[in-house]
Amino acid sequence: MPRSWTLKGRPSGMPTADNFALTETPSTELSNGEVRVANRWLSVDPYMRGRMNDTKSYVAPFALGEPMQGGAIGEVVESNADAIKVGDMVQHMLGWRDEAVLPASQVQKLPDLGVPVQQFLGMLGMPGMTAYWGLLDVASAKAGETVFVSAAAGAVGSTVVQVAKAKGMTVIGSAGGADKCAWVKSLGADHVIDYKGDTPLVKALGAAAPEGIDVYFDNVGGDHLDAALAHARDAARFAICGMIDGYNSSTPTQLKYLMRVIAARIRIQGFLVTPYFARASEFYEDMAAMVKSGALQSQDTVHDGLDATPDAFLGLFSGGNTGKMLVKL
Amino acid sequence: MPRSWTLKGRPSGMPTADNFALTETPSTELSNGEVRVANRWLSVDPYMRGRMNDTKSYVAPFALGEPMQGGAIGEVVESNADAIKVGDMVQHMLGWRDEAVLPASQVQKLPDLGVPVQQFLGMLGMPGMTAYWGLLDVASAKAGETVFVSAAAGAVGSTVVQVAKAKGMTVIGSAGGADKCAWVKSLGADHVIDYKGDTPLVKALGAAAPEGIDVYFDNVGGDHLDAALAHARDAARFAICGMIDGYNSSTPTQLKYLMRVIAARIRIQGFLVTPYFARASEFYEDMAAMVKSGALQSQDTVHDGLDATPDAFLGLFSGGNTGKMLVKL
Repeated sequence: MPRSWTLKGRPSGMPTADNFALTETPSTELSNGEVRVANRWLSVDPYMRGRMNDTKSYVAPFALGEPMQGGAIGEVVESNADAIKVGDMVQHMLGWRDEAVLPASQVQKLPDLGVPVQQFLGMLGMPGMTAYWGLLDVASAKAGETVFVSAAAGAVGSTVVQVAKAKGMTVIGSAGGADKCAWVKSLGADHVIDYKGDTPLVKALGAAAPEGIDVYFDNVGGDHLDAALAHARDAARFAICGMIDGYNSSTPTQLKYLMRVIAARIRIQGFLVTPYFARASEFYEDMAAMVKSGALQSQDTVHDGLDATPDAFLGLFSGGNTGKMLVKL
Repeated sequence: MPRSWTLKGRPSGMPTADNFALTETPSTELSNGEVRVANRWLSVDPYMRGRMNDTKSYVAPFALGEPMQGGAIGEVVESNADAIKVGDMVQHMLGWRDEAVLPASQVQKLPDLGVPVQQFLGMLGMPGMTAYWGLLDVASAKAGETVFVSAAAGAVGSTVVQVAKAKGMTVIGSAGGADKCAWVKSLGADHVIDYKGDTPLVKALGAAAPEGIDVYFDNVGGDHLDAALAHARDAARFAICGMIDGYNSSTPTQLKYLMRVIAARIRIQGFLVTPYFARASEFYEDMAAMVKSGALQSQDTVHDGLDATPDAFLGLFSGGNTGKMLVKL
């Protein structure tokens, strides 16, 4: 019988395994236009934490008792639609389950870019689009500029590092621990800051960027954002993608250097990736060229089996992943 | 003998009268191309607090032992330059003194707009340009939108209120105390929040703007900025002009609602007025039309005599002014 992870309760602060329940649902027959997908890869992403709250936001909260939604990749095993054939590899948003039944209009066939399919949940999927458009469009980063990116060993951050290097920028990344830092350096970052090290972040960033930074790509918020404010050059642009520091906390963000937005004429721009879905072909074209040239490397942290999905998700908040966090079914 | 206020010491935290010294300097003869200006009006402005610190910023710090610089308006009483005649009313930046001797290239003759000359230190001067360009260019505020402006009874804020109303926006202003609030209402604001009242700011703003705000013009920072974050609509724009809350404090800014920049895709843009000096003629043309139509009213808080200059300046940080704070010589 198909199984899925449903939202059992809403967390206050850090989520736990108890927030989720593994449930069985009888298999359904396909209606006209529907397909059945056997999922092969599930995505867990930091933004899902926000949807666990019952608050108004840019997407509806996850419903209690319903399966957790999210990106998934699978093989079509039954089709009642003309456009999608059995054997097609597709992507959809039905999330944490082993089998998905849905209208063919709600699945996307994966483009043939000659890469492992799971990359369409990472560098060539939503995290990759987030990195690409956040860096190049939201922050208007240009060749020759200095870019600081936090959580540089994460799915989004590691793509920012590599796209920025491929486009001729100087890159400073932050990550937690020696292994992650070494990996970020191997991706081409000019400087890597271990935020778990002894040096205060604001001092470490000053040493890495003595002339200051032109762009900050924020995945973390808090101290990272404050350090970026402290070292922003005139007319710096901040693309605010995430603030994982605050997702599980109700403590106010404390900023010592916020007033620098005025003197340095900083632009801080929050953004979502969804408006950029319409520009997917532009994204695939440019990214495919970089993949082919060898400019982009990918790394995944893989948990095995549907049962492990909550663990994979919770690991996002304890630094458990290098590169994209995935569940392989 | 000409007298001026010099910077005697740098404040830590709130400045005091002891930071300034009234000094006499022998009168100098004019060199070729110079003019002598008998000052009539001196400007004191919040930004001057920043220049009292010995820190790198967008303008050099005030030098110890030297006269405080700043906007001033006076009458030319002696001229050794062709372009400027005795009797001309001019503006210059030599600041807190009764007489200024400087090259004619460093004074601007006042445009003839049929208004009291001191308005060129207020609504038609730097504070006015700051309000006008911050609202219309930095924040891209449009007719039909809802604008929140803090320190709405100040020189900049009161101009924001009036320009926004003249351009067809809904305006919410905040000010401290019943008298200031009544004045802001008389300028045309749709709602006025007394930030010294019992209702927490975030709640008061929610009541005044149940549909949220499109634009926030920040003169204050801190709680005001946080309330604006809490109630920002999708794609809201914040023009950050000043953060007077923090000028005399080393306490970090605490923001509970900062994470909303992502979900609401907020743009926070710090700005300075200096790049807009090049567009002065555009500004004068539009503002003159509004002055003639009666859309703009001006109010000054006037201190009398050079001796009172430090008191006028210090009053900026204790809510001592309604409208523009000026010293009349």
